[in-house]
Amino acid sequence: MFAQFVQPYWTALNDRLQDIVRSELPDEPGFGAMVRYAMGWENEDGSPYDKLTGKRLRPALLLMANQSAGGQWTDALDAAASVELLHNFSLIHDDIQDNSPIRHNRPTVWRVWGVANAINAGDAMFALAYASMAKMSDVVSPEVALRLWAIFNRTNLELTRGQHLDMRFEQLERVSVDDYISMLKGKTGSLLSACAEMGALTANGNEKQASKYGEFGLNMGIAFQIRDDILGIWGNSDVTGKSAATDIQSKKKSLPVLYGLTHSPELVELYQVDDFGDPEIEKAVHLLDEVQARQYAIEQEQKFHQAAMAALDEAQPDSQATAPLHEFVDALFDRTY
Amino acid sequence: MFAQFVQPYWTALNDRLQDIVRSELPDEPGFGAMVRYAMGWENEDGSPYDKLTGKRLRPALLLMANQSAGGQWTDALDAAASVELLHNFSLIHDDIQDNSPIRHNRPTVWRVWGVANAINAGDAMFALAYASMAKMSDVVSPEVALRLWAIFNRTNLELTRGQHLDMRFEQLERVSVDDYISMLKGKTGSLLSACAEMGALTANGNEKQASKYGEFGLNMGIAFQIRDDILGIWGNSDVTGKSAATDIQSKKKSLPVLYGLTHSPELVELYQVDDFGDPEIEKAVHLLDEVQARQYAIEQEQKFHQAAMAALDEAQPDSQATAPLHEFVDALFDRTY
Repeated sequence: MFAQFVQPYWTALNDRLQDIVRSELPDEPGFGAMVRYAMGWENEDGSPYDKLTGKRLRPALLLMANQSAGGQWTDALDAAASVELLHNFSLIHDDIQDNSPIRHNRPTVWRVWGVANAINAGDAMFALAYASMAKMSDVVSPEVALRLWAIFNRTNLELTRGQHLDMRFEQLERVSVDDYISMLKGKTGSLLSACAEMGALTANGNEKQASKYGEFGLNMGIAFQIRDDILGIWGNSDVTGKSAATDIQSKKKSLPVLYGLTHSPELVELYQVDDFGDPEIEKAVHLLDEVQARQYAIEQEQKFHQAAMAALDEAQPDSQATAPLHEFVDALFDRTY
Repeated sequence: MFAQFVQPYWTALNDRLQDIVRSELPDEPGFGAMVRYAMGWENEDGSPYDKLTGKRLRPALLLMANQSAGGQWTDALDAAASVELLHNFSLIHDDIQDNSPIRHNRPTVWRVWGVANAINAGDAMFALAYASMAKMSDVVSPEVALRLWAIFNRTNLELTRGQHLDMRFEQLERVSVDDYISMLKGKTGSLLSACAEMGALTANGNEKQASKYGEFGLNMGIAFQIRDDILGIWGNSDVTGKSAATDIQSKKKSLPVLYGLTHSPELVELYQVDDFGDPEIEKAVHLLDEVQARQYAIEQEQKFHQAAMAALDEAQPDSQATAPLHEFVDALFDRTY
């Protein structure tokens, strides 16, 4: 769907990622294997793995932002590799925290090598992400390199904040919509924001413009996640004739559900039922529709989507430069409800 | 024992650490609590904790190196706070990996808040450590700040390498002495090396001198750990009249034991016994003495100790400047066998 946007960068990005892992990761038996497995280059026995894992969306966004702001995207490859390493570090730790056995159709790192090793492999990729970002000082001025460092630090703290809220919300009976959006800002928005901001900053060093790019990425990320929440309940119902509603089955506290829980006492009562079968799912969707939770979520998505595009326009009123970014966002949001 | 060396910096360092945690850590309920608990400032319910946790050895070494190399130690406080945050991050993850329930006489973070939260609290402190280090750019030139970043990245990758080897060795029946020393370089030496190097670099920007300081810290760290290994078997035997030998009881693969296992087939056989009681411990110590494992370990300790002091002399032939560092090392090593 958006492979066409990533494709121009794919080979150069993959080469750079492999270079960094090869040159920066200390060489010890079994150490690099976990990282290369997580990156989707190897099977657990070290043999080559050739299926696609991960969409490399974040580095592609960074490189597109760089080009839009007038940069040479090849100059930003170390920053692009860095955000992809960071994203994959966070997945390794997330999978331990969520007790998830499968990622990209393969056993997760902790399932293969155990929790202790997976924590350490994640820590190593965190440090690798910083090492890759630090290499940007070969290309940009020391001042811009230090600014990248500061943005990256802020982003990583935001990511842990989002993760904290996400785990906390699982324990709470009630979560407000505002708290949920605040969690999305950290968990999904912050890294996409950093990608757009760092891409633009690397292009020309203009901090004010870059900050607008960051605002674009942040709002786009939140809108994208809300869209996902809507699809998790009403996905393709028009096409398939029946509701997907997987997020109802798993009782996921997504935006429409949180909205529904504050507007429908009947839904609150229903969600106290332990065994959720088809009748309960159907009733829950009905109650959500009754309080117009879907409409509310669509409005929220549009609000953040519009904020994203407004920030991009402010960043760069020349729409020709940002045309590829517009097409990318259109593709991201081109999924039928 | 070495509290006198840390004491001059204690208040300023603690204030700086608290400032950084307060200003940089995102404010979410329950998030900062884990960090403040780990730093030894709070109980798990958020009430003040006033017992001493941690010796703050690493930041003290950094600040002493800074002073020796002619710096104003107050300029290096953000770097000092950074290495202490990093050290405490690594302890949080170590305790999960080792399944340790107690640290500094209190339940470990994972025991109080669970593994998932403890992983995330560690990740947040990792990012906080970087954020604190990045603040050094307010004091030093951009070039020196970028050099600090590069040293920190290298150190953090080395730490994960050391941790990887340490965990790997627990699974192996045989570990060579060389591999063991290599593990110590990563796990203990790398951060002490970085402390000394970054302290000196911050003082005057002289990379060559700072690198010698790093060599000093690395070798001192290894010597210190070997000394610990010796004390774990023969600690205070002259004073108490009986062997401590706690490391024999736990079958820890420390340096004297690894040496013994390659020189005494009888010890190899003995170490296959599952239940280790007093007779087995006594026999193991006897076998180690027979192959002169203690003598070997003392020689190794002295080798690294001497290499440390030689590097310090090369870094700064003016012995007056480094007198406090010499006293500090003397105090560190002033423990009776």
